[in-house]
Amino acid sequence: MDRIKVIEVHEDVRANNDRAAEALRQRLHDKKTMLINLMSSPGSGKTTLLGATLDRLTGEMNIGVMEADVDSDVDAYTVQRHGARAVQLHTGGMCHLDAAMCEQGLRELGIEGIDLVFLENVGNLICPAEFDTGATRKVMILSAPEGHDKPLKYPLMFEVSDVVIVSKMDVAEYFDFSLEEFERNVRERNPHATIMPLSAKTGEGMQQWIDWLRGEVAAWQE
Amino acid sequence: MDRIKVIEVHEDVRANNDRAAEALRQRLHDKKTMLINLMSSPGSGKTTLLGATLDRLTGEMNIGVMEADVDSDVDAYTVQRHGARAVQLHTGGMCHLDAAMCEQGLRELGIEGIDLVFLENVGNLICPAEFDTGATRKVMILSAPEGHDKPLKYPLMFEVSDVVIVSKMDVAEYFDFSLEEFERNVRERNPHATIMPLSAKTGEGMQQWIDWLRGEVAAWQE
Repeated sequence: MDRIKVIEVHEDVRANNDRAAEALRQRLHDKKTMLINLMSSPGSGKTTLLGATLDRLTGEMNIGVMEADVDSDVDAYTVQRHGARAVQLHTGGMCHLDAAMCEQGLRELGIEGIDLVFLENVGNLICPAEFDTGATRKVMILSAPEGHDKPLKYPLMFEVSDVVIVSKMDVAEYFDFSLEEFERNVRERNPHATIMPLSAKTGEGMQQWIDWLRGEVAAWQE
Repeated sequence: MDRIKVIEVHEDVRANNDRAAEALRQRLHDKKTMLINLMSSPGSGKTTLLGATLDRLTGEMNIGVMEADVDSDVDAYTVQRHGARAVQLHTGGMCHLDAAMCEQGLRELGIEGIDLVFLENVGNLICPAEFDTGATRKVMILSAPEGHDKPLKYPLMFEVSDVVIVSKMDVAEYFDFSLEEFERNVRERNPHATIMPLSAKTGEGMQQWIDWLRGEVAAWQE
């Protein structure tokens, strides 16, 4: 078998918004509001997971949601029905959010008295990984149908995430998704991320996620 | 129910590479090489579809494949096993390919005597839609598990595509994927795209795709 040629093609687009993100994070800490940057591919089940999460935590804490999309506002209506305060961010074609965009969203949402805000980032495994939004924690979702090889192909997203959720575990077998191989692939890039396999449809694995959220909010508000 | 606030957040990153793309397309036409820009989310089954396509067309025409990824070269080895000449493009973190990157890849691949080249773009439903790579046709894949609402959320990708393939149709029912609603959503954005539901796993719908490729290559080489 011939060796495959590998060609490195380059371009520099990274913008530095680290300072703005750090200032926002500090301000959120002062307000005792925790912000989670939720990232994934399109169609990985972010909104479904959020709905199931809200069903379990509404009443116990005040939750806000910022739904970012290139277009449409279907997701914001969905999470609002689950009891969260919600705003929709339109990025006008942009593939990610930065700290300034996140801040605009928080201003519109209002964070007074809000314990936890989810930023549902644009569906994209590449660009959002490069930008600090000011969030307290980065959580990414990979759905089982996407395949266990994805940490090899989108390494930065797996490197920067504190939690890696594997969604749609109820169909893992049909798609030959190996959790063991996936974990090995994640570990090559990120030895510290917490990996949480779950299914919002069957409820399997949801408890670990909910308990993790409770613990993180409590620690942030101390 | 409260009305959802919609906030428009902006930033300008579009680079103009239209002239380079047009020149490349003309050169490919002179060489009678057709180039297809294949775009989708991560894990939509691009590589599996390519393998099934190569199995049906190798021998009949000479096919080359450029696999673009942020990292890894697993896909290039896979398609090479199916009989295609293959190169791997590493984008070094970049979320899309432009015409100059595509041209670098074609130079390494070599197009002399090649009838058809597939450019497997980076897995991303947003950024690749904005850049003309010089390809003859743009084909996008949406997998049924991603959901029939995606044309509303990633409109540009659906607008620019000549063909919209729906992959993994064998699991459409399990994921409550409605082909009818999907087609309606696509049509709002793009009245002309050819929509091809198929499953590379079961072979369902593959014939329409193969026949379309044959017709396009013949027309391009006339």
